[in-house]
Amino acid sequence: MSDELTYDLVVLGGGTGGYAAALRAAELDMKVALIERDKVGGTCLHRGCVPTKALLHAAEVADTAKNSETFGIEAEFKGIDIAKVLEYKDGVITRNYKGLQGLVKARGIDTYFGTGKLAGKDTVEVAGEDGNHTVKGTNVLLSTGSTSKTIGLEITDRVITSTEALQLDKVPKSAIVLGGGVIGVEFASVWNSFGADVTIVEGLKHLVANEDETISKNLERAFKKRKIKFKLGVMFKGVEETADGVKVTLEDGSTLEAEYLLVAVGRGPVTEGFGFEEQGIPMDRGFVLANERLHTGVGNIFACGDIVPGLQLAHRAFGQGIFVAEEIAGLNPAPVVESGIPRVTYCEPEIFSVGLSSAQAEEKYGKDQVEALEYNLGGNGKSVILGTTGLIKVIREKDGPVVGVHGIGARLSEQAGEAQLIVNWEAFPEEVAQLIHAHPTQNEALGEAHLALAGKPLHFHS
Amino acid sequence: MSDELTYDLVVLGGGTGGYAAALRAAELDMKVALIERDKVGGTCLHRGCVPTKALLHAAEVADTAKNSETFGIEAEFKGIDIAKVLEYKDGVITRNYKGLQGLVKARGIDTYFGTGKLAGKDTVEVAGEDGNHTVKGTNVLLSTGSTSKTIGLEITDRVITSTEALQLDKVPKSAIVLGGGVIGVEFASVWNSFGADVTIVEGLKHLVANEDETISKNLERAFKKRKIKFKLGVMFKGVEETADGVKVTLEDGSTLEAEYLLVAVGRGPVTEGFGFEEQGIPMDRGFVLANERLHTGVGNIFACGDIVPGLQLAHRAFGQGIFVAEEIAGLNPAPVVESGIPRVTYCEPEIFSVGLSSAQAEEKYGKDQVEALEYNLGGNGKSVILGTTGLIKVIREKDGPVVGVHGIGARLSEQAGEAQLIVNWEAFPEEVAQLIHAHPTQNEALGEAHLALAGKPLHFHS
Repeated sequence: MSDELTYDLVVLGGGTGGYAAALRAAELDMKVALIERDKVGGTCLHRGCVPTKALLHAAEVADTAKNSETFGIEAEFKGIDIAKVLEYKDGVITRNYKGLQGLVKARGIDTYFGTGKLAGKDTVEVAGEDGNHTVKGTNVLLSTGSTSKTIGLEITDRVITSTEALQLDKVPKSAIVLGGGVIGVEFASVWNSFGADVTIVEGLKHLVANEDETISKNLERAFKKRKIKFKLGVMFKGVEETADGVKVTLEDGSTLEAEYLLVAVGRGPVTEGFGFEEQGIPMDRGFVLANERLHTGVGNIFACGDIVPGLQLAHRAFGQGIFVAEEIAGLNPAPVVESGIPRVTYCEPEIFSVGLSSAQAEEKYGKDQVEALEYNLGGNGKSVILGTTGLIKVIREKDGPVVGVHGIGARLSEQAGEAQLIVNWEAFPEEVAQLIHAHPTQNEALGEAHLALAGKPLHFHS
Repeated sequence: MSDELTYDLVVLGGGTGGYAAALRAAELDMKVALIERDKVGGTCLHRGCVPTKALLHAAEVADTAKNSETFGIEAEFKGIDIAKVLEYKDGVITRNYKGLQGLVKARGIDTYFGTGKLAGKDTVEVAGEDGNHTVKGTNVLLSTGSTSKTIGLEITDRVITSTEALQLDKVPKSAIVLGGGVIGVEFASVWNSFGADVTIVEGLKHLVANEDETISKNLERAFKKRKIKFKLGVMFKGVEETADGVKVTLEDGSTLEAEYLLVAVGRGPVTEGFGFEEQGIPMDRGFVLANERLHTGVGNIFACGDIVPGLQLAHRAFGQGIFVAEEIAGLNPAPVVESGIPRVTYCEPEIFSVGLSSAQAEEKYGKDQVEALEYNLGGNGKSVILGTTGLIKVIREKDGPVVGVHGIGARLSEQAGEAQLIVNWEAFPEEVAQLIHAHPTQNEALGEAHLALAGKPLHFHS
């Protein structure tokens, strides 16, 4: 027998999408249940965005120490104390986790720790740590998240995913990274900075192949300089463990050996065993299908985050979670527009993008209806000060608004904010060029790119 | 006898305002003369923004090396090699300078090296390195820039301004910084990171007293933590040199001793001896008065940059220079709106602001017609990763647009770009809250602040 409780909203999965919906719903005076089988915060906080960015910052600190002489600072780099790196990383998680727990508590959300199963259109059965609960909700949100794909490989001490990589208590001497997408290049970047010999294997023609080709090529140049190796356009065939590591065979017949293989081939939805199909939730290859308003078409059941096809990004899940809460509250919120969501890859150099790539813009508007401009960071004073290279690329519809902004260079993730306002508000380059960007910032490069695209280049070498 | 040449535009002073006007005018097919008695690029490039930011970056590298253990990186900080710091700084200048010289040349601008004097409404006499020239222009732009104020003090080996401080071939053991404005706190920040014992003396009640009071107080707390000392609300009385430094007396009778006194009490216009008054240019305490369209009211003579009362910022001068060129070309450009110009102080922690402070907004709209929200960076994942503290403050007119955005924290200068779009485009917090900021960035804190101000806080602890 289990107790039975009724809520305005039952959220199944306490990751970014789920807890954002729960927090917003509670603000809107709903009675909310949040069901989580591990820790509130989910992948992003505990084994995704946050810990990887902590490692990437430790990597930046290591690089800074190594290169300090360039700036006239005498410092001797001695090595990586991986136990302390993990302690720092875990400290960052703990601090954010405590903050989040405080918020959930302060907003009066009932949290159930245990595995939930959709048992009806308004019912989730929770096999809880403290017994079973039947949790009923006028509305239900499915937000069970994602996990690393392993393409049938067994995860071992040597063949690992990002989850294990974040816990690794040593710096690999060498590693093969399977996959040159966001996760792959971020780990390759960290390990290279920590001293490992890294080789990325990517089946597509480019690293970060979802980005504008200019950005991919620029990253490849930067990684080459950093001595991060990569094999592009070649498929993985198999891996076997050796006495002291792994031996990877590729479809072209070549083999690679290293201490570790990191499998970073993307993330798949976690939707098995939750009763979704039994309740008639429309699904496709494990993903939950929802309409633009994130409704599944079944009862009052919504879905958000990585289980809904689209960009697998924590901030998309935040936006979607908030949307669902406001939708339920009858606030008629504007849907989250996928094309306006900023994307960031935090490797060194960092990459950001909002909107369309050149190829996408040309496909959409026609090749002669698109104008693009690349602003080299060599002309940007602050980037010269930081010792970084790269570029900002701005793409506009001819005589029309900016439809894409892309960038690569140290610390450029922070430019995603202005870029997304420009793209989402459909600003013309002339309107941005009218405004004054602070000197000397990297942000200025965004201003200069718009000045140049508006036909009034300032510090621009053509 | 001198040769005589006629131009569409004669620019007197090749600093940021002057060269920006020259470059833009040349793009607009004008024949342009640029007169400069030192180096094109002016204060900003050679002894202002750019070199100070290079020193501040070297300071950041030193701090990173010192604190590397926090992040698990083993590095031993050994000291500052000031000769190499200066070499790095000079390298940054040289690289930017070469780029600028290339631009000036590529756009076919005639540069005259020498001191120019306004000899008529359309005439500048140049006492050039290569002889005298009479340069005539259908239009003339006065952009002779600014220099450090010295309030009657003699500049010596021990009593210096920022110009000398940038060349100093040693790290001071101790320094007194007279003035807690932008320049004062930037040098205090650098010297503290380099190991000096620094005391700031400021006559006003706060450091960076032009900023919102919350920001000033936050900086004071941060400086206290860094062991940068400061005396506020006390006036400077005098300085005398001692055997090994300076002894400063304050109006409250107290004295301070140190190796150096940095006089950082602001910058005054450089307008003496250029014949401005003789030609009837309206002046006030050394500044050139120009109207909103930067016209002096005399002939076709315009003025821009630090000689025109207002914010003494390089990017203001860029904007004004471009404006003047377009105005002359008949493009009827929109005037540069002083209130929309972003302001940045690059000390550690960095400060940015756009628009009104709380006090200014309350004065303008009435106390009950203003709403403000402070978002603590403690809730921002990336700031926790960086180990920085601080806040973002957003001020709106009640039920109206955002009228001010302020921030303090490591690296926050880069947030000025999005902030200035918001303020200049008079966005409502609700419109910004609608958009998704990338996680985990510091930029996200700007998004969170707008979410909270729009009444839908996400990661916000009240």
